[in-house]
Amino acid sequence: MRDGSTGRGLVPRKVKGFRDLDPATNALRWRLVETASRVYASYGFEHWDTPLLEYADCLGKYLPESNEAAEGVYAFPNPEREPIPDAEGAPLRDVDNRVLFEHALVTLRYDLTAPLARKYAEDLWEGRKNPGRVPPLFRRFQYGPVFRFEQKLDPGRFREFWQLDFDTVGVSDVTCDAEVAMILSDALEALGLARGTWEIRVNSRNLHQGLFERVGLAGDEARCRDVLRVLDKVDKIGVSGVEAELGAGRVDASGSKVDGLRLDAATIGTLTGYLDGTQGAASRADVLGRLEAQVGGTPSGTLGLSELRVIDDTLTALGYGEDRVVFDPSVARGLAYYTGPVFEAVSKLEVRDEHGAIRRFGSICGGGRYDGLVERMLGVRVPATGASIGVDRLADLLSRVEAGRRTSPVLVLALGSRQRVEQHRAAAELRAAGIPAEVYFGMQAKMKAQLAYADARGCAVAVLLGSEEVERGVVALKDLDMGKKLAAGITDRAEWRSGASAQVEVPRAGLVDAVRELLASRG
Amino acid sequence: MRDGSTGRGLVPRKVKGFRDLDPATNALRWRLVETASRVYASYGFEHWDTPLLEYADCLGKYLPESNEAAEGVYAFPNPEREPIPDAEGAPLRDVDNRVLFEHALVTLRYDLTAPLARKYAEDLWEGRKNPGRVPPLFRRFQYGPVFRFEQKLDPGRFREFWQLDFDTVGVSDVTCDAEVAMILSDALEALGLARGTWEIRVNSRNLHQGLFERVGLAGDEARCRDVLRVLDKVDKIGVSGVEAELGAGRVDASGSKVDGLRLDAATIGTLTGYLDGTQGAASRADVLGRLEAQVGGTPSGTLGLSELRVIDDTLTALGYGEDRVVFDPSVARGLAYYTGPVFEAVSKLEVRDEHGAIRRFGSICGGGRYDGLVERMLGVRVPATGASIGVDRLADLLSRVEAGRRTSPVLVLALGSRQRVEQHRAAAELRAAGIPAEVYFGMQAKMKAQLAYADARGCAVAVLLGSEEVERGVVALKDLDMGKKLAAGITDRAEWRSGASAQVEVPRAGLVDAVRELLASRG
Repeated sequence: MRDGSTGRGLVPRKVKGFRDLDPATNALRWRLVETASRVYASYGFEHWDTPLLEYADCLGKYLPESNEAAEGVYAFPNPEREPIPDAEGAPLRDVDNRVLFEHALVTLRYDLTAPLARKYAEDLWEGRKNPGRVPPLFRRFQYGPVFRFEQKLDPGRFREFWQLDFDTVGVSDVTCDAEVAMILSDALEALGLARGTWEIRVNSRNLHQGLFERVGLAGDEARCRDVLRVLDKVDKIGVSGVEAELGAGRVDASGSKVDGLRLDAATIGTLTGYLDGTQGAASRADVLGRLEAQVGGTPSGTLGLSELRVIDDTLTALGYGEDRVVFDPSVARGLAYYTGPVFEAVSKLEVRDEHGAIRRFGSICGGGRYDGLVERMLGVRVPATGASIGVDRLADLLSRVEAGRRTSPVLVLALGSRQRVEQHRAAAELRAAGIPAEVYFGMQAKMKAQLAYADARGCAVAVLLGSEEVERGVVALKDLDMGKKLAAGITDRAEWRSGASAQVEVPRAGLVDAVRELLASRG
Repeated sequence: MRDGSTGRGLVPRKVKGFRDLDPATNALRWRLVETASRVYASYGFEHWDTPLLEYADCLGKYLPESNEAAEGVYAFPNPEREPIPDAEGAPLRDVDNRVLFEHALVTLRYDLTAPLARKYAEDLWEGRKNPGRVPPLFRRFQYGPVFRFEQKLDPGRFREFWQLDFDTVGVSDVTCDAEVAMILSDALEALGLARGTWEIRVNSRNLHQGLFERVGLAGDEARCRDVLRVLDKVDKIGVSGVEAELGAGRVDASGSKVDGLRLDAATIGTLTGYLDGTQGAASRADVLGRLEAQVGGTPSGTLGLSELRVIDDTLTALGYGEDRVVFDPSVARGLAYYTGPVFEAVSKLEVRDEHGAIRRFGSICGGGRYDGLVERMLGVRVPATGASIGVDRLADLLSRVEAGRRTSPVLVLALGSRQRVEQHRAAAELRAAGIPAEVYFGMQAKMKAQLAYADARGCAVAVLLGSEEVERGVVALKDLDMGKKLAAGITDRAEWRSGASAQVEVPRAGLVDAVRELLASRG
């Protein structure tokens, strides 16, 4: 359709980076969400939900006085005009004591952790008359879509995607971090991912901090971030690549120059020694022993080692061995807000990338301790730990390791509208017996179109009601997989009726039993 | 926290009209969604999903050249700058052949039908090289949040709420409308709403149209809408109130003057006769017989009567009697896009409103035929029929007729951090036996706080591990409901241990069996 005045067309289309989810993908998503949620609930996490839309200042991507749609999120002014809150939540007033109004910036949530912080802070805020109390314990899981406006969209990535988080707020006990690793492990196993095809890698931010203390970088946060970014590349570019990037720089595979951090040789030696030193370690305890040499004695390093020791003790006592959870001092996790133990679950599955190269499937979920959760909003530190599953990415993994489990209905077809009520009746009988059954409404369609519909829907069995059959008190059952092989040659009703090998006639009264038998015979 | 330069505060808060969903409400929502979805799937509907965010022009609340956030929806400019499409989807160009760009208006979906239209139209558009073909059959269900910016928010209403829709696109067969009534009926029963506590009311827009034809209003759409709006009030103001509003107007209960439509007496008589004429009808067939006198003979009335006749025949043949589905010629359904049969499921439950007055709970879901689904986008009429459940409203109803079914974990408590690993081990054993179990991490908390946490979580049973008990190879089990009654007097550990009536000691090896038994004894 065309708007005559501007030439603009009305073209049915999705916003770029968004997608419709088909039934097979949806089934996979929901199997994942339900299975993992059951594991979370079994550990005592409760299912909370928060709004899709939040005040931007409460999520923390904006300064409140900024009104610009910053990169990375979907933000816009609230259509509602509201009083601007002062520090106590009362309306802000001008010099003439008039209430100041604004259309506050709101944003689609970009993760599930920022809304958790808002919810927890809101509860604390409402109880602020009683400031001395211990931060309350809060354990919740939550799932749903989050939104990121990434300028450049990699293949297979979307701007709306699902996360599935569990978090414990108000706990500094490190066995609670050990529990995070156990939960991720249990969830992956519950999803049917065989042991040995994945591992959970654990590290602590405090070990990195100890390393920075040892090389005298600990005060320079920007520098530390740069170093972490390089160390995190070890899986991709190896220790020698890391060494080069920490020093003079290197030329990558495409011939591009990658600038180096120009650290001195001794510092580089200590940093790469940290990566190298645990290569080939035999056990979590062995990793800890070797790390003692790297970061032991520094204040943060000592703390990080004691964290990992508690995690190892707990996991070992509970039977979570090296085949599921390993210590990996290279794990950095991108987010700056982690303050202690961090986790990354990695699939070892090999897949072909878009260029046909074989690579590891890689990270499927992650998390860690973040004790600064509500500090920005309330000025108090509240300890918290948890993890997030990237639902779409894990669903992608599941789709590669298992056959789809789409359950399609039996399709009840009729030749001629006089059989319509009979068609509804047959479908209702099947449903009453627990067999999903669909009345086929595309009456005007040719046989080929009917079969194409059944095929597209993945239907295994069709029930066929013709006036002749109804008079004789019988129905025809069609095995659609077998029928598909014959379909090319079928063009009219008579031929369809006579497709004997794919079709059987059964008494109308025995319909439900016959369908059940046919479905069972197909496995 | 306070921003010194402006006095603005950073107050943790939700956007007005949005809410956090607690575990009990969430459990109800998901029981509803899963139960109804299973019914939809049993009829052969497949689960599709569409994005939360859509181009405003594809949803149809905006003219494409408008950039205003119109009342009623959340809309904002896409942060992505894109070429403006022409009528063929190619980039629009200026007189110098330069591509024209824009930040297109995007909107949070305000229902699930408009995105269905976009999806179906998109499929047709992509196959537009083959324009002669029959509109494909498409049956899908979908659920999730939708967003409306309603200026005035009634109590208990939210700007983010959930819908659960099923639709069949590409079918004009009226038995498909009958199926809609059967599905709604099956879904309400599957949810445990007893027969007789609700009814599904069916009407056809064509009967109203026939009525307008009879009184000579059929050409004047605005006038017809006004009349419908008044007829729709019959449940609230009675036939005499409708009569007054069609004529000179009336004064309502609050003393306000309600303007009348000032129709002539003969027209008013025909219109109220339409409402009156079916009062006390004994059956659907009886309603049809009486309506024959009101609108029979008009072109649309004849069509509407034949639609309802097919629906009655189908429902009767399938055993859906008057106790579940009735014909009610007053049902109008607000939306202008309905073109044929319309449905409204109504709960007869009596509840107290916010003023303490007793009233009927009212409408819980609705739907109908809307053959203009994609007409605006593609210029072709495609028949469609379906219905939508207002999830939050139906969940509200369910919460009034059934006790909550929150499943809370067994809480594993310890006295002193030395028992931490033992605590994890006990919880893991319970989980392995299928009993949700939570390690209590609030170690620093006083006994009262621990019990308050268990209470807030709805925990029925606590497992207590003290060093003394561990040494003796026993654990203490606490019946928390019974314990609650004693809790007021409990202030220290010794007292807690001795709360004999609410607490039993069992061998550590028999923990799982003992917990199972205690849970079972509580029903």
